Amino acid sequence: MSSSKLTIGLFGFGVVGKGLYQVLHSTPTLQSSIKKICIKNADKTRDIPAAHFTTDASVLLNDDSINVIVELIDDADAAFEIVKTALQNRKAVVSANKKMIAEHFRELLQLQQEYQTPFLYEAACCASMPIVRNLEEYYDNDLLQSIRGIINGSTNFILTRIAEDGLEFNEALRLAQQAGFAESDPKLDIGGFDAANKLSILLAHSFGVITRPDTFLFNGIENICQADALVAKEKKYSIKLVAGAQKLSTGKLAAFVLPQFVTAKDDLYHVQNEFNALTTESAFADRHFFKGKGAGAFPTASAVLSDISALRYDYRYEYKKIHHQTDTELTHDHYLRVFVSVDELDKINKDDFEWIEEWHNEFRYSWLIGIIHASKLFGRSWWKQEGVSLILCPDPVIESIDYKKVSRRSLELAGVV
Amino acid sequence: MSSSKLTIGLFGFGVVGKGLYQVLHSTPTLQSSIKKICIKNADKTRDIPAAHFTTDASVLLNDDSINVIVELIDDADAAFEIVKTALQNRKAVVSANKKMIAEHFRELLQLQQEYQTPFLYEAACCASMPIVRNLEEYYDNDLLQSIRGIINGSTNFILTRIAEDGLEFNEALRLAQQAGFAESDPKLDIGGFDAANKLSILLAHSFGVITRPDTFLFNGIENICQADALVAKEKKYSIKLVAGAQKLSTGKLAAFVLPQFVTAKDDLYHVQNEFNALTTESAFADRHFFKGKGAGAFPTASAVLSDISALRYDYRYEYKKIHHQTDTELTHDHYLRVFVSVDELDKINKDDFEWIEEWHNEFRYSWLIGIIHASKLFGRSWWKQEGVSLILCPDPVIESIDYKKVSRRSLELAGVV
Repeated sequence: MSSSKLTIGLFGFGVVGKGLYQVLHSTPTLQSSIKKICIKNADKTRDIPAAHFTTDASVLLNDDSINVIVELIDDADAAFEIVKTALQNRKAVVSANKKMIAEHFRELLQLQQEYQTPFLYEAACCASMPIVRNLEEYYDNDLLQSIRGIINGSTNFILTRIAEDGLEFNEALRLAQQAGFAESDPKLDIGGFDAANKLSILLAHSFGVITRPDTFLFNGIENICQADALVAKEKKYSIKLVAGAQKLSTGKLAAFVLPQFVTAKDDLYHVQNEFNALTTESAFADRHFFKGKGAGAFPTASAVLSDISALRYDYRYEYKKIHHQTDTELTHDHYLRVFVSVDELDKINKDDFEWIEEWHNEFRYSWLIGIIHASKLFGRSWWKQEGVSLILCPDPVIESIDYKKVSRRSLELAGVV
Repeated sequence: MSSSKLTIGLFGFGVVGKGLYQVLHSTPTLQSSIKKICIKNADKTRDIPAAHFTTDASVLLNDDSINVIVELIDDADAAFEIVKTALQNRKAVVSANKKMIAEHFRELLQLQQEYQTPFLYEAACCASMPIVRNLEEYYDNDLLQSIRGIINGSTNFILTRIAEDGLEFNEALRLAQQAGFAESDPKLDIGGFDAANKLSILLAHSFGVITRPDTFLFNGIENICQADALVAKEKKYSIKLVAGAQKLSTGKLAAFVLPQFVTAKDDLYHVQNEFNALTTESAFADRHFFKGKGAGAFPTASAVLSDISALRYDYRYEYKKIHHQTDTELTHDHYLRVFVSVDELDKINKDDFEWIEEWHNEFRYSWLIGIIHASKLFGRSWWKQEGVSLILCPDPVIESIDYKKVSRRSLELAGVV
């Protein structure tokens, strides 16, 4: 469809859909127009004439004059059915639905190949930032060592308010909801699910690894309390929900979404409120850092728009790393340096630790910093229960331990001697 | 040449060329190899067999089996001749030569169109960072409002050392040369010429404006002194050489490369040493920030490599903004808020200022902050002479002045009343 006119069928007319509609109609150079919009609720009052709308998906999916489907609905299962049918009908698809994409990555890949039809989803990761496309296009020479980022705007907004305004988690969450940065049901964000879905998409485009969130360590920020924020402040750290993946010397990949202490020298330290950011490390290009708005109607619409625009030039993801780097896999065979705080001492599973570096005991608030094997966190739940915060330390991944270097003091603290 | 093997003819075997050679030979998945290397001096001892080299450019340019020319030589005039002939012979070209590209942009554009052959030059701007490609591909919907960046690594290294180590300019320059971040003849960097060449390339890909550096305001950092650094410190600013272009309400573009005071809230504040960075502002995506290494053999080689890799998938710049946005032009019809320091009072052309906000007089060091019309700087030289520093203030561009708001005090300082 080189440089040709695009005729769009749009699913969903929420804030992003409306933003997109406005932009498309005010930018004639895009040579794209929305022919029909499929909505769930026909009774809602809309700003544009009723003739634009239908509640029947097949009206869009079977219309031969529509060559692009833009899918912007919430329901991941319904979204997958739409995308699947659209690709089978050889309509290019643009989507922002990270949950749907993460859950159906392999099937979506197959559909794209079978029907030779492009499926773009830049808006699904870090909203406005061209992250997927850069990982896909630019870092394609087997040289990427790690990616690390703040990829959920709601949780970053909440953590910023906890640190700057001295709020407890629930107060900060309420503020985020008032500001429109968190859903009325915020579980997907604050439980880390949204970031985990995004990381699983990024893993495919960074390292060629297709995996679901349940294969790597992840958690949210619900248990981060003001006392944790004060420890962070004392140590001159800030707490961020960091999604990361890094190649170990074995060639395998350590990946996780966990709260982390970051130092002022870390680029992620300066990422505040609803901003998202990603750092990449590669053998030759060294460190790169991208920052931009990771939430909001217009930033998301802008990414959708860029995908639509790319379709005009026949752009599609080549998935080069999936096709060329078939040997990379995730591992839990490494250690992590972690901070753990508890309201009650018996919530901590001390025996799981290799050793403990620091140990502080206060009334109803104790914390330790120690080294733990990742496999002893994966699949276990003591560190996810209420009243327990687990926060990664800076540079948390340790490939192997030299037990000779364990000081007597740390062994004592750990109760080893 | 879709996914096909690339056979490369390489011009230049300096640090970047050597780095590229190593990477290509250690990454077989790239399916690219260097067939022949053209060098100037046949007598130098090389690390690889002499059979790889020639001093005759036509050996590469007329070899039908070579489908890609990689041009990595210093001499801009010789480089242009090589690139021109290569494109005429329908060989794709990758170059890192910003001076050559800035000086011959229009001809190079014509050659690409006439011979339908791609010419890529990601490494020419900000070395390792995918800036050209992102401006070209992602921000292509007429919505970009401004770009601002630190696009010369040598000068940023020098400015960082002046600020952090309390050095005078010449000492910091020597340090940069020792660290390999400045050429033995550093004029191109410290005089702002290199950044100006890069800005002129960025203007084409950001706003579709083809222009030479002599059409916008630019200067380097040679006159920045320790006393200026102390003023900056007192005001909690840092001094950066900033290249910027921003759309005015008239639709015209204010563009310049000048030293600037930046505040701690500005993302550019945290860009230290040889790092480069670019911020973009657009109507929908809002602010984006990219940071990465802007100098060095491997970061540059990595960008060259990404271009080579892109050629395998028939990538070429579409120059969409040049073709679609033909009406954008540069203007000097705006005001700038500037800091000017002088070692001798009579070096300052006070009459050029609309008004003066601050005025400080010390022995052999005086400075002012004032508003000046950009046209009163363009083409004049008093502010470029030895002993005079001109540094933009934060948010320096002022579209129009409300003279009623000029305080009596500032008029007095300016000698108006």
